[in-house]
Amino acid sequence: MLARNDGLAELNRKWLADRGILAVNLMSSPGAGKTTLLERTIPELGAEMRVSVVEGDQETVLDADRIRATGAPAVQINTGSGCHLDAQMLAGGLKTLNPPDNSVVLIENVGNLVCPALFDLGEQARVVITSVTEGAEKPRKYPQMFRAADLVLLNKTDLLPYVDFDVDAFLDGARRANPGVEVLQLSATTGDGIDGWYGWLRARLP
Amino acid sequence: MLARNDGLAELNRKWLADRGILAVNLMSSPGAGKTTLLERTIPELGAEMRVSVVEGDQETVLDADRIRATGAPAVQINTGSGCHLDAQMLAGGLKTLNPPDNSVVLIENVGNLVCPALFDLGEQARVVITSVTEGAEKPRKYPQMFRAADLVLLNKTDLLPYVDFDVDAFLDGARRANPGVEVLQLSATTGDGIDGWYGWLRARLP
Repeated sequence: MLARNDGLAELNRKWLADRGILAVNLMSSPGAGKTTLLERTIPELGAEMRVSVVEGDQETVLDADRIRATGAPAVQINTGSGCHLDAQMLAGGLKTLNPPDNSVVLIENVGNLVCPALFDLGEQARVVITSVTEGAEKPRKYPQMFRAADLVLLNKTDLLPYVDFDVDAFLDGARRANPGVEVLQLSATTGDGIDGWYGWLRARLP
Repeated sequence: MLARNDGLAELNRKWLADRGILAVNLMSSPGAGKTTLLERTIPELGAEMRVSVVEGDQETVLDADRIRATGAPAVQINTGSGCHLDAQMLAGGLKTLNPPDNSVVLIENVGNLVCPALFDLGEQARVVITSVTEGAEKPRKYPQMFRAADLVLLNKTDLLPYVDFDVDAFLDGARRANPGVEVLQLSATTGDGIDGWYGWLRARLP
């Protein structure tokens, strides 16, 4: 099953490369703030890049509706009892979205710190988002997810005064799982630190 | 695979019933506060009931160490790339723990709102924990988990002043997924509302 997925992921990768499209796979626990990050990113970068979104959830179209309210095209994929997106789902989503050449596709995976790490979608980059309310030991307890990351975003820094979260321990855990991985701290709610994320995206634009 | 699991779950259920042991399966997203809830529950109920703990995580023995620091016996099960405990793992954990008759076994499942809902462990009750930092729409987006719940705990209520969380929408979503399910609001950190959880456990004691 994984081998079949990897084959389809390669097809996606070629399809995206042929069109100069940057696809980024966003992965996190449920409620880490993926959709809120997209709701801020799309309007604030709208003048610089065309963004469309693939939303993965077990059920509901709530997230795609939130994205469309920003003006970006979005397609919702419901995985039913499945705990992750796979390459075939992304292929279907791309066909429906039909994103323009030289644009950006942001993929919001199912909220889950385990399964999505195992499934290559054919994306160019993987971003793992953790919120400060989840506990600083997450990289140690879910190392596969952090090992798979090209970028780690530590979100909800606006809540740091109200929770017991050891930022240094988190950074240490992330770097043990994935030496040299870039970690950016931000709050998608207030916008603090968001420029680092925008700079990371700009540097990868086609 | 699920059928084989269900068969082993029945054996666990009989094993537990023969000994008058109450086994409760705690499930949530990563970082919703399961371990913190156990760290408060075990010493505060220690005079009334003997509690032992089965800890599930992809990697590390961090959580079992936290539980042992409370004085309760704990066994850690590492699932590797697996996203949930299964009945065979629980059987192994019970054999190692060897809990006394008429006691309580609290099972902390892998942090995940999808996979654990599919695997019966042979437990008598399932508790789903959500924190107010995760967003009120979680029961609608992960309905299988909430459908499986005998009790829903809404945790981290101490953070309600700092987050945008609609308690009524959460309650409505939980009841749509699972009509009549009991929902208790509490903060495992401050202890607010914790008596409701203790009362629920007491009512189910062997």
